[in-house]
Amino acid sequence: MNWKFARRTAAMNPSAIREILKVTERPHIISFAGGLPSPATFPVERMQEAIDRVLGNGIEGRRALQYSASEGYGPLREWVADHLHRTQGLAVSPGQVLITSGSQQGLDLVAKVLVDAGSTVLVESPTYLGALQAFAPMEPRFAGIACDDDGPDPAAIAAAALGADARFLYLLPNFQNPSGRSIAAGRRQAVVDQALQSGVPIIEDNPYGELWFDAPPPPCLASLAPDATVYLGSVSKTLAPGLRLGFVVAPTALFPKLLQAKQASDLHTASLNQRLVHEVIRDGFLDRHVPTIRALYRSQRDAMLRALERHMPDDVAWTRPAGGMFLWLELPAGIDATSLLDDAVALGVAFVPGAPFFAGGDARVSTLRLSFVTAGAAEIERGIALLAQAVAARRPAT
Amino acid sequence: MNWKFARRTAAMNPSAIREILKVTERPHIISFAGGLPSPATFPVERMQEAIDRVLGNGIEGRRALQYSASEGYGPLREWVADHLHRTQGLAVSPGQVLITSGSQQGLDLVAKVLVDAGSTVLVESPTYLGALQAFAPMEPRFAGIACDDDGPDPAAIAAAALGADARFLYLLPNFQNPSGRSIAAGRRQAVVDQALQSGVPIIEDNPYGELWFDAPPPPCLASLAPDATVYLGSVSKTLAPGLRLGFVVAPTALFPKLLQAKQASDLHTASLNQRLVHEVIRDGFLDRHVPTIRALYRSQRDAMLRALERHMPDDVAWTRPAGGMFLWLELPAGIDATSLLDDAVALGVAFVPGAPFFAGGDARVSTLRLSFVTAGAAEIERGIALLAQAVAARRPAT
Repeated sequence: MNWKFARRTAAMNPSAIREILKVTERPHIISFAGGLPSPATFPVERMQEAIDRVLGNGIEGRRALQYSASEGYGPLREWVADHLHRTQGLAVSPGQVLITSGSQQGLDLVAKVLVDAGSTVLVESPTYLGALQAFAPMEPRFAGIACDDDGPDPAAIAAAALGADARFLYLLPNFQNPSGRSIAAGRRQAVVDQALQSGVPIIEDNPYGELWFDAPPPPCLASLAPDATVYLGSVSKTLAPGLRLGFVVAPTALFPKLLQAKQASDLHTASLNQRLVHEVIRDGFLDRHVPTIRALYRSQRDAMLRALERHMPDDVAWTRPAGGMFLWLELPAGIDATSLLDDAVALGVAFVPGAPFFAGGDARVSTLRLSFVTAGAAEIERGIALLAQAVAARRPAT
Repeated sequence: MNWKFARRTAAMNPSAIREILKVTERPHIISFAGGLPSPATFPVERMQEAIDRVLGNGIEGRRALQYSASEGYGPLREWVADHLHRTQGLAVSPGQVLITSGSQQGLDLVAKVLVDAGSTVLVESPTYLGALQAFAPMEPRFAGIACDDDGPDPAAIAAAALGADARFLYLLPNFQNPSGRSIAAGRRQAVVDQALQSGVPIIEDNPYGELWFDAPPPPCLASLAPDATVYLGSVSKTLAPGLRLGFVVAPTALFPKLLQAKQASDLHTASLNQRLVHEVIRDGFLDRHVPTIRALYRSQRDAMLRALERHMPDDVAWTRPAGGMFLWLELPAGIDATSLLDDAVALGVAFVPGAPFFAGGDARVSTLRLSFVTAGAAEIERGIALLAQAVAARRPAT
């Protein structure tokens, strides 16, 4: 059979990270590459108890195995609305909450509903690679927005939107993947104001917001412009990613189309997973559980910062994330992180080169992403020493 | 915010069935409308035991809560390949099996990879409404293929493909939703031959194939043209739909693009659900379990056929499905099933009008779909009597 592929498949490519991860899954490699939450944080016993209660509950237990509403499980939608109000000051009704199969699906649905081929999507430089992959099949042009330590530059947003058929501005405001940076409190209003002035809605992706180390992040963007923002969240980083349980909170003008796209995509998110998650968290479990994740990740971030200071040459710079899972490294200009990776893997340590996180042609090849959550503190010390060794061997002769 | 929707959203509409189901979920309505498997068939206790084993298995248990490969859980992919070989005579390698979030997601992925706006998709008349909804966002033209009691007319396939940019022919060969019809053994080769001759790949959707009542169905279409067929399956009808666990088996030429589309859509299907299903079925459980579902649904089909014969006027015709979940009714030409539904609901019985199952403008408004799996035998007898009463009241005066 001579298969004729849809044109959009030209924009669908194997994830560079995925290919790298295959290499780094070899034994004896210390990997800072993946974005895998520490399995030590998964509350396995509590989930076992919860699932026994869910399935053991007579007729309700059978409902956990039956088809269910595309919107999601009512009590879980109520929990999400209440949780966002309590933790983010975001006033939403449960009717605006759509339960998704991970927040990755939220990105797919948003693109299906808002992106036409040739329209423009504004993204931070760098941005989450999985979002680029979710949006790409709908064939947008990507415009990369320059960022500094405080977040995206409002003037760059204005310039990118001007004259473009811009459909949305995609932002990760807290402890961004890959950079570890957050949008500063003072910058948030300016970014939102510029987006509104340019007529560009905001897609706010907040998987890491609850993983703060010292103080909660500033108010979310959705709370500053509720009618112009779609908010994406997930329990992947606070409970467990293997459940694939996320949510989209959308203005009422947008919700029905997202719901129709959800229904067409997979009918609904697994009933069992929704009831399981609700049973696990409904008594306020996350209030007790998430602080333990914060403490673990903070100690591992500290271990990585200490190791970087100890081992890295002076001309290497890195971010100091106040939460989340990732840290961003800038090598001296002459070093390409993609070729550095070969040397690093040969020494026994892996990372993700920064280039794939840039869209719109402004890739900075001497950057790389390090995860501080998967490997423990001792491995972090050894791995960073090896990475520094690889960098030192690559430093341009001076 | 003035949201600008993507053009494809014009093809995304609330499901007619979904709206009907809301009405029919009222108490005291006997509903033949939904396609809900009987919850009595869900092996709840076995699932509880299996999930305890999965989560209780130390490091492996934590893997059930972690991110995992987009292709799916290796042992489950092996089980699918083995199961298809054993039950369908289909020789596939585990590397051709992609685990999906229900087979609905398989339809979404197939459309993403194969359908361009304005290209043509060939479907049976009538066909599964959920497939039309999954394909529609990629903006195909639908060409309805005329069907008789033996299945689609090969000449109609040839005519629809001629000069069209046809991307695939979508078929449900066994106990089709909505008609309950199967493609006859003798017709299968002719359909496949014509598709190959017209250069049109086949998407074979087989959710009901294992629910045969008297004898297994003829060989699947994929076994007749393995390089030209994508095969979709699921455990929704043999185990439980609320787990959202399906699979796509694709020729190697197509597999990588489907995998990339899957990864972009939701990263992977929930790890927990994949391991749970594998733990439930790996010892051959379905060989013991599915016959109990067949026996239940056969007795309910028999109850519905008996009730139809007892109560329906002579000028009403219906199919006599040899398996599956649905039966198709043809009313006298003057009766519109959509307006009949109002009368039926007022009497206390519900069904789905046939019109939404037709694509390509050939809707037959005096048809309707009845499910015989959700309501029990006594309800079936009462409900069909009420439906016959509604039909009799609507019969054109002679």
